[in-house]
Amino acid sequence: MMITKSKQHLLSIKQLTNEKIHHLFEIAKRLEREETKPSYNDTFATNLFLEPSTRTKTSFHIAERKLGMEVLELGGDDSSLTKGESLYDTLKTIEALGVDIAVVRQSEIGMLDHCSKGLDMSLINAGDGCGEHPTQSLLDLYTIFEHFNTFQGLNICIAGDLKHSRVARSNAFALRQLGANVSFASKEEWQDPTLADRYINIDDAVEQCDVLMLLRIQHERHEEQETTGSYLEQYGLTKERESRMAAHSLILHPAPVNRGVEIDADLVESPKSRIFRQMTNGVTIRMAIMEAFMKGEL
Amino acid sequence: MMITKSKQHLLSIKQLTNEKIHHLFEIAKRLEREETKPSYNDTFATNLFLEPSTRTKTSFHIAERKLGMEVLELGGDDSSLTKGESLYDTLKTIEALGVDIAVVRQSEIGMLDHCSKGLDMSLINAGDGCGEHPTQSLLDLYTIFEHFNTFQGLNICIAGDLKHSRVARSNAFALRQLGANVSFASKEEWQDPTLADRYINIDDAVEQCDVLMLLRIQHERHEEQETTGSYLEQYGLTKERESRMAAHSLILHPAPVNRGVEIDADLVESPKSRIFRQMTNGVTIRMAIMEAFMKGEL
Amino acid sequence: MMITKSKQHLLSIKQLTNEKIHHLFEIAKRLEREETKPSYNDTFATNLFLEPSTRTKTSFHIAERKLGMEVLELGGDDSSLTKGESLYDTLKTIEALGVDIAVVRQSEIGMLDHCSKGLDMSLINAGDGCGEHPTQSLLDLYTIFEHFNTFQGLNICIAGDLKHSRVARSNAFALRQLGANVSFASKEEWQDPTLADRYINIDDAVEQCDVLMLLRIQHERHEEQETTGSYLEQYGLTKERESRMAAHSLILHPAPVNRGVEIDADLVESPKSRIFRQMTNGVTIRMAIMEAFMKGEL
Repeated sequence: MMITKSKQHLLSIKQLTNEKIHHLFEIAKRLEREETKPSYNDTFATNLFLEPSTRTKTSFHIAERKLGMEVLELGGDDSSLTKGESLYDTLKTIEALGVDIAVVRQSEIGMLDHCSKGLDMSLINAGDGCGEHPTQSLLDLYTIFEHFNTFQGLNICIAGDLKHSRVARSNAFALRQLGANVSFASKEEWQDPTLADRYINIDDAVEQCDVLMLLRIQHERHEEQETTGSYLEQYGLTKERESRMAAHSLILHPAPVNRGVEIDADLVESPKSRIFRQMTNGVTIRMAIMEAFMKGEL
Repeated sequence: MMITKSKQHLLSIKQLTNEKIHHLFEIAKRLEREETKPSYNDTFATNLFLEPSTRTKTSFHIAERKLGMEVLELGGDDSSLTKGESLYDTLKTIEALGVDIAVVRQSEIGMLDHCSKGLDMSLINAGDGCGEHPTQSLLDLYTIFEHFNTFQGLNICIAGDLKHSRVARSNAFALRQLGANVSFASKEEWQDPTLADRYINIDDAVEQCDVLMLLRIQHERHEEQETTGSYLEQYGLTKERESRMAAHSLILHPAPVNRGVEIDADLVESPKSRIFRQMTNGVTIRMAIMEAFMKGEL
Repeated sequence: MMITKSKQHLLSIKQLTNEKIHHLFEIAKRLEREETKPSYNDTFATNLFLEPSTRTKTSFHIAERKLGMEVLELGGDDSSLTKGESLYDTLKTIEALGVDIAVVRQSEIGMLDHCSKGLDMSLINAGDGCGEHPTQSLLDLYTIFEHFNTFQGLNICIAGDLKHSRVARSNAFALRQLGANVSFASKEEWQDPTLADRYINIDDAVEQCDVLMLLRIQHERHEEQETTGSYLEQYGLTKERESRMAAHSLILHPAPVNRGVEIDADLVESPKSRIFRQMTNGVTIRMAIMEAFMKGEL
């Protein structure tokens, strides 16, 4: 089958209207229902991860292969590709080698946008430093939507290390655009005044929210300074707090989870938790994004 | 073709009856005869090697691809997957991403057995520290069987660094269960009293045995302390010793061979040697194991 | 489809007659015209890179996959494969595992030729230290040929760090054999008396040549000692020099380019430049080589 390849980029969640987001969800639902036909055998995708992330990289890899795409894994020890070369030249090289879609994780905000101007290849931002990580946002949104089938009026609390989180800001933006009420809970040092002017208490959060989005404590050094049990007791999701959450409510976490820190170890696989479901949905939503790319629908 | 996936584990050679072992050999023989049809296109396998082993990993990779499976190579620099995460959470993540079979090398004996309880994925032990390495055992057994077509009454001597060997114990167990007579030859420091109470001399071994299974000297430091030629002369397979072996007898070695240490360099590709044949058989037997998994026959 | 595999090696550009080179070009042109059918599904190729080169490795990977081959990427952290093992034993192991074609980058000149004698597998030299890199040569030649459709009487100048270049010597040999006039330009320290007895000036070169083949400054230390702008002004391709090149002439560079050192940054994607085209052609010519291998036509 000859497929007309169309150049599209997914660099920020902000580029997507509510209609586009719901269209991606429809594609995702169809992909779940149907046996996927790996139709894109003549398409080459590359996962260029200049910062480590096996989880996201693996999720993209599986999504690409399920669509039948060829996958090139680059990064890590492939420093020779980028040595003495700008990201633009690296991407231009990959394009010249015949690659159609590049999934890129790198540290500089705005860099991918800059590179995209000279490329005929589609780009997906898989995390740019402290900036955005739109496919993580979309998998979070999809996990909420498959449970509630709406965002209108949902109370969603994002809790944890907001200052160092890449997804908190994107998720807050998209959730509000989709009609949800978003609140934030965080210890004082990790509050970010540009994100919210009011922060709520985790004890209030669990009683009010339909969805509790926990964040990973990113900087391991911070973590070590905390007495593990002490963080959980003061700011994390203990069993006691979980018992006060509404029966229909959900627990989300981008993983990897620090069991016993952000959340009691026993709650990770508990009924309200969608933590492993998020990973499954990550593959599906990434397939949906790439299928939308290929059809020029994004 | 819709394939019903069945969850099975291969964690120890001891879980296999003689019947199961011979069933695997039959599958392997059929795979050798027939052009393999790569039928498992909708199956994802992962090779998660937390300790290095390119040889075994590559053998699994080829076996998986020959069966048509999708392969995810993880480990090495993928520390981010396991950082701050238990092996259980890593495997649970891989399962959530859609993987059906995980081939795992890691250092803790019993750990895979522990993990398997919470997983819906099939697990294969590809070496757990000083514990077991059942697929290596099976390829050794298969190499013997394809030559002699029986194990009954075969005299098999396992010779070398028995103390640090993962396969010596598994092989001895399985070979005896299958009807062979197993003896051991080793320099005194490398004898293991829990393995055998009597050790024979390499000079006697070569005259008695139908199969001489040499072991690799694992700890390179040991090796350096030996004068290379001196180890070969005292404990290794010299040309002189090989000349006293029976015409029908076989030389096995798990590789990589230290040429001139465990065995004279010229004997590696000599008529009695099955050293490279073992590698070829490794791919076949791993295909057989995974095909048995997929059909729920193990 | 059953394909008879034929053992052939490409170790040096010198093994190819003009007829063979033109035959490879014809296969390459056909591959460009036609939709490639990935016909070699039962063929395993390995890219064994014991010295880093993501660019060449990736180019081979894409070429192999476009032909439908299975690809094993080895090297880098796969030191366990080669530790305590000669390159010959590593290749013999790969062959025993079922691999048909090995693409090898390693540092010792003549080593592959030595290894090839005991192997039934096809070998491709992907760079041996300061020796040869025949597929890079062929992609350079093909890029020239697709523009001029001949080599007869073409004036080709190879300019830059000739002393450390692997391709300069191979290219000079092949270009002369094909009928071109080859000249060299280099600063005095990088001139190699065994390559040419006469060196021309870059200012003369640009006015005389139909093709200017720039070389990468390989030793980053050298580069740092240069004031970047100063090297470009004295020996590199400035915009002023480019303006004196003939309208029909071409600029080649093996990449990665040090923009602003060997060539003005703005010229990299200028009309005379074939720098990214060379990368595209690299995939095509490598496909052509491997197809010729499989058919026993090399």
